[in-house]
Amino acid sequence: MSEQKFSYSSLFNLSKEVFQKIGCSEAHADTAAKALLSADIRGIDSHGVARLSGYVRLWEVQRVNATPGIKIIHESPSTAVVDGDSGLGLVVAPFAMQVAIEKAKAAGTGWVSVQNSNHFGIAAHHAMMALSHDMIGMAMTNASPLVAPTFSIDKMLGTNPICVAVPAGEQPAFVADMATTTAANGKLEILQRKNKETPGGWVQDKEGKPSTDANILKKGGALLPLGSDREHGSNKGYALGAIVDIFSGLLSGANYAPWVPPFPAYVPMPAKQPGKGIGHFFGAMRIDAFRSSEEFKKNMDDWIGGFRNAQPIEGEKRVLVPGDPEREMEAERSKNGIPVHESVLADLIQLAGKFSISWPH
Amino acid sequence: MSEQKFSYSSLFNLSKEVFQKIGCSEAHADTAAKALLSADIRGIDSHGVARLSGYVRLWEVQRVNATPGIKIIHESPSTAVVDGDSGLGLVVAPFAMQVAIEKAKAAGTGWVSVQNSNHFGIAAHHAMMALSHDMIGMAMTNASPLVAPTFSIDKMLGTNPICVAVPAGEQPAFVADMATTTAANGKLEILQRKNKETPGGWVQDKEGKPSTDANILKKGGALLPLGSDREHGSNKGYALGAIVDIFSGLLSGANYAPWVPPFPAYVPMPAKQPGKGIGHFFGAMRIDAFRSSEEFKKNMDDWIGGFRNAQPIEGEKRVLVPGDPEREMEAERSKNGIPVHESVLADLIQLAGKFSISWPH
Repeated sequence: MSEQKFSYSSLFNLSKEVFQKIGCSEAHADTAAKALLSADIRGIDSHGVARLSGYVRLWEVQRVNATPGIKIIHESPSTAVVDGDSGLGLVVAPFAMQVAIEKAKAAGTGWVSVQNSNHFGIAAHHAMMALSHDMIGMAMTNASPLVAPTFSIDKMLGTNPICVAVPAGEQPAFVADMATTTAANGKLEILQRKNKETPGGWVQDKEGKPSTDANILKKGGALLPLGSDREHGSNKGYALGAIVDIFSGLLSGANYAPWVPPFPAYVPMPAKQPGKGIGHFFGAMRIDAFRSSEEFKKNMDDWIGGFRNAQPIEGEKRVLVPGDPEREMEAERSKNGIPVHESVLADLIQLAGKFSISWPH
Repeated sequence: MSEQKFSYSSLFNLSKEVFQKIGCSEAHADTAAKALLSADIRGIDSHGVARLSGYVRLWEVQRVNATPGIKIIHESPSTAVVDGDSGLGLVVAPFAMQVAIEKAKAAGTGWVSVQNSNHFGIAAHHAMMALSHDMIGMAMTNASPLVAPTFSIDKMLGTNPICVAVPAGEQPAFVADMATTTAANGKLEILQRKNKETPGGWVQDKEGKPSTDANILKKGGALLPLGSDREHGSNKGYALGAIVDIFSGLLSGANYAPWVPPFPAYVPMPAKQPGKGIGHFFGAMRIDAFRSSEEFKKNMDDWIGGFRNAQPIEGEKRVLVPGDPEREMEAERSKNGIPVHESVLADLIQLAGKFSISWPH
């Protein structure tokens, strides 16, 4: 598997320029490129520049509006519903998260459900916006159906990720960002490239039978909810994915369940559209709406330290705290560059050519 | 396994009388007995009358205050922290959930973190209080350490359940109530009585090695987070349990991580106590703080119907919606009575004798 390394700024500038070429304002392009690159720098390669051409294709088939009038269409002191006007989720999500933060400043917490949006990249980027305000941040989104609920053949839910980001004091923030499936789709893609099978408990075939075929989604199979099967709690992973769908899709008036629009532009829209676009949900909780922020952060440091010092099992060096791997990846890639897989590189070069952008320099 | 059936009212009256005998007011005893019995009637036998004598023992060793002055010690328009004054969680939790509901009436949402409480029974009972107000309800609690995080030998978290209850229209409410472990402790107890092993992925031994011994907790072993192992996403179950701990323990100023007080009165308190008692977290979100409650509930009916009509895998009759099994159990037990295991019955008879209560009639 050949890859080449690029600096953050090289990939950021390319992405920003592409977003401007499809008609985004400079400010929107900047916001979108930051959200996109936050995936690459944190090591979530499936959600970063690898998807740039996918966003462009959504714009080409007019599923993405490059100049959206994003607005609040309903609100209360601690809540709002935002209409993303078919904008890039990479732009709509930071807008909505900012609304949640402003609500939290005044009311203690802010909760924003979003309709009429598109894919927003990684949840952590948006949830982490709360941290510098001494707030806990939350972000989740629904997505097109790839997941079969417990006992179901039909795919009814997306991988529906949840992120919760919690500020600490001396310690770095706690950042848990997870798909509500056993394995994220990106992990299947890695196995596909290597021509390997999946472990048991990740996927099922089109008849609902256990499978280890990394290409099973293309053959009508499905991802399994976190827990894998009923005996190991897949009903809980299913419930988590469902909660994300209800908060993101149903509270906002977006599409939900198997009727969430697909990311690939060549996949036709679902025949039924019970709402508008894709849905997200964001939350911000001001720490000092509960107790002294200093005392809380002292406790968080103690909490994190306790987990870091837990005794690891044989063969493992240490117990990790959610957010550790991504933060360490960010430090490493900031220094040494971001590796881009050859197929993604070819895609980016083609994209640059298409828009007459001189890249790579 | 011998068992005997009792009516709801027989078990309710016994429980209420026991709570009054330890000094609870009539109102508190009523509240506590309702919370306790909600477990039995819904089929969560591990959390109902089977624990009545355990609550009494906590009172005997003065870890439970039968006449607590439960109060709000910090608040904002959408948040509050409640001090449970060492009261029964069965009484403190409904108080705090009511505060969340009142906050939501005024501010759109209400979020209440609780310190200085005790075990609150099943999370669903409290979360479901929101339903009749056309609100989404949430309840979670931390608990004493039984769970080893991914890669850890040490037990750092409780089974830390989360419940989310969502109102629907024609359909019954969506109610997901789940421990953040692969299997709840109650399932181990059932296997212990039957002298059976657990499936793989439920527990590990005191060295952190995989085990199928249903008695492993007594031998220094641990429950595993939802996901079982790293390959199947146990880092996500661990993160979920951690989030429950942070919201319940750290936002409130209660104890957290391995320092949460144990339920059995004979287990000594942890040497370190970074906070007060056990912590809970409750949320209430008014549907119409987001959009028309009628439209939302119409969508929920459509959503639930979609899942009910999904094609089941071979060997299964149907796809369930979270809350279905417990609701069906409640209907069955309301009609035919609640089965009480012989060991629990002996315990209840002894308890009745101790307090000179004539039971069973």
